[in-house]
Amino acid sequence: MNDFIYAMDLFGTAVFAISGALAAGRLRMDPFGVLVLALVTAVGGGTVRDTILGTTPVFWITDTNYIWLVMLTAALVMALVRCPRRLSGRWFQVADALGLAVFTVIGAQKALMSGAEPMIAVMMGTMTGVVGGVIRDVLCREVPLVLRTEIYATACIVGGILYTLTLHLGMGTELAASLAMLGTLALRLAGIFLGLSLPAFALDNPKSP
Amino acid sequence: MNDFIYAMDLFGTAVFAISGALAAGRLRMDPFGVLVLALVTAVGGGTVRDTILGTTPVFWITDTNYIWLVMLTAALVMALVRCPRRLSGRWFQVADALGLAVFTVIGAQKALMSGAEPMIAVMMGTMTGVVGGVIRDVLCREVPLVLRTEIYATACIVGGILYTLTLHLGMGTELAASLAMLGTLALRLAGIFLGLSLPAFALDNPKSP
Amino acid sequence: MNDFIYAMDLFGTAVFAISGALAAGRLRMDPFGVLVLALVTAVGGGTVRDTILGTTPVFWITDTNYIWLVMLTAALVMALVRCPRRLSGRWFQVADALGLAVFTVIGAQKALMSGAEPMIAVMMGTMTGVVGGVIRDVLCREVPLVLRTEIYATACIVGGILYTLTLHLGMGTELAASLAMLGTLALRLAGIFLGLSLPAFALDNPKSP
Repeated sequence: MNDFIYAMDLFGTAVFAISGALAAGRLRMDPFGVLVLALVTAVGGGTVRDTILGTTPVFWITDTNYIWLVMLTAALVMALVRCPRRLSGRWFQVADALGLAVFTVIGAQKALMSGAEPMIAVMMGTMTGVVGGVIRDVLCREVPLVLRTEIYATACIVGGILYTLTLHLGMGTELAASLAMLGTLALRLAGIFLGLSLPAFALDNPKSP
Repeated sequence: MNDFIYAMDLFGTAVFAISGALAAGRLRMDPFGVLVLALVTAVGGGTVRDTILGTTPVFWITDTNYIWLVMLTAALVMALVRCPRRLSGRWFQVADALGLAVFTVIGAQKALMSGAEPMIAVMMGTMTGVVGGVIRDVLCREVPLVLRTEIYATACIVGGILYTLTLHLGMGTELAASLAMLGTLALRLAGIFLGLSLPAFALDNPKSP
Repeated sequence: MNDFIYAMDLFGTAVFAISGALAAGRLRMDPFGVLVLALVTAVGGGTVRDTILGTTPVFWITDTNYIWLVMLTAALVMALVRCPRRLSGRWFQVADALGLAVFTVIGAQKALMSGAEPMIAVMMGTMTGVVGGVIRDVLCREVPLVLRTEIYATACIVGGILYTLTLHLGMGTELAASLAMLGTLALRLAGIFLGLSLPAFALDNPKSP
């Protein structure tokens, strides 16, 4: 992982940690709850990816910078944030989209390096991007947002396909990674600013009255 | 794993994927949500089993047929199913029971092959059969059905015991596997058609008013 | 692990299993549900720790005493308990605090033995203590209690820091472990008997009306 990607990865980790800490604040959790929600949101996806691939100990045990950064971020959120609305706005969503793009490419990269097939790399990229948010929502007792709305996971899938495809066509790693990140980002931003979303698959609920 | 068991395993995977996709449809999820629910239901149990046993990368990374099959199944469900009632009927439950029986025996088999004790093999067989459905229910924000009702997990436990016991008595692997699958199936069908269930352990809820 | 710590570990396992079985009883689960809730509460934390550290197969596969003990405990709870109020009282909380203290130190110890840094050891100790209860609460469809209330996880964190710090200062393993257990216990008992808790981080919920 080169320095630029590493810096972006830490940036994404901090942004995801903020979104976890805010979710904890909405449920009036104590500082430990805030830390846990920040941690699972920020490193949950990569942790599940690493245990499934068997590349253990997981990434944040060999490089503890991720954990220190999440702790610092959670502390800053508790100290400074009084008005979460400002952090749920458009700018924060753009930062989140950047994090999503980096996480996707790093996840796909790690899968390929462990010897997995391209299709698995796409899955692992998507997992790195979205599983942290899914665990956050389950702990907050909500049906995970990512399963229901907007272009979010779809951006990861397209980014992952772009990455493995360009690599397959012989493009260099750095160029392929940049293209895939741009693709993920562009699609996610289209979701945010144009309100694009996929059509829902809706069945009657036989359990409802 | 011989060809017959492998074919049955793929059959079970498809049936479990259908039940996940239908749960997603009832919550009006988007196509990504449908795919995720189909995946966790179909391969979630085996994934947890493999990470706990340490036989990583998990099974669907070394044999991607499982994932392709789940994707195809999820796509077909979205394209074709309009009336889920037909798929919640008796025939579907019988197909699900077949899947459960195969998953149980395969789970127990993999545990024994990794060197675990018979009791652990019974646990791993049961886990392979039921954990996917548990994760599906948690993501749908329901108390997992399998913890509350009918002869479901019980069929796995009995099947696992049958398998390890007949092996211990010197029976050949294929015969033991067939017997255990038939036992699981018979017990589960008894649960479906005779309405058998275990008595609940009910305590007063001190939190209720 | 010396004999005293091992005995304490089994004691903690049984106490945690009781709390899982009681949660299952409150939701009127069947005997399988009771067993599952007892298992995840008692061994869930250590299982997640072992898969993240990559020390697989996880601890209860190599030493099945833990599982047999949980099964026995769950069976006894179902056979004997009619009045859960008695088991939610102060004495049970003290027993739970003892379990928490041992789990914390054992978790930190295993992390250090696998070569992890002190900060990771503190995390793994805390995880061993609280993750089982978190999974129990998620399966029961509750926002995990430990994220919201009292001095619980905080006691684990302080105990973990005490353990790694005293080891770092050159103290012997047994003395360090004893000190850390006493510290965790004392802090947790202060939470129970003095009603201490951390201030919540409360944000307006923009989703509420």
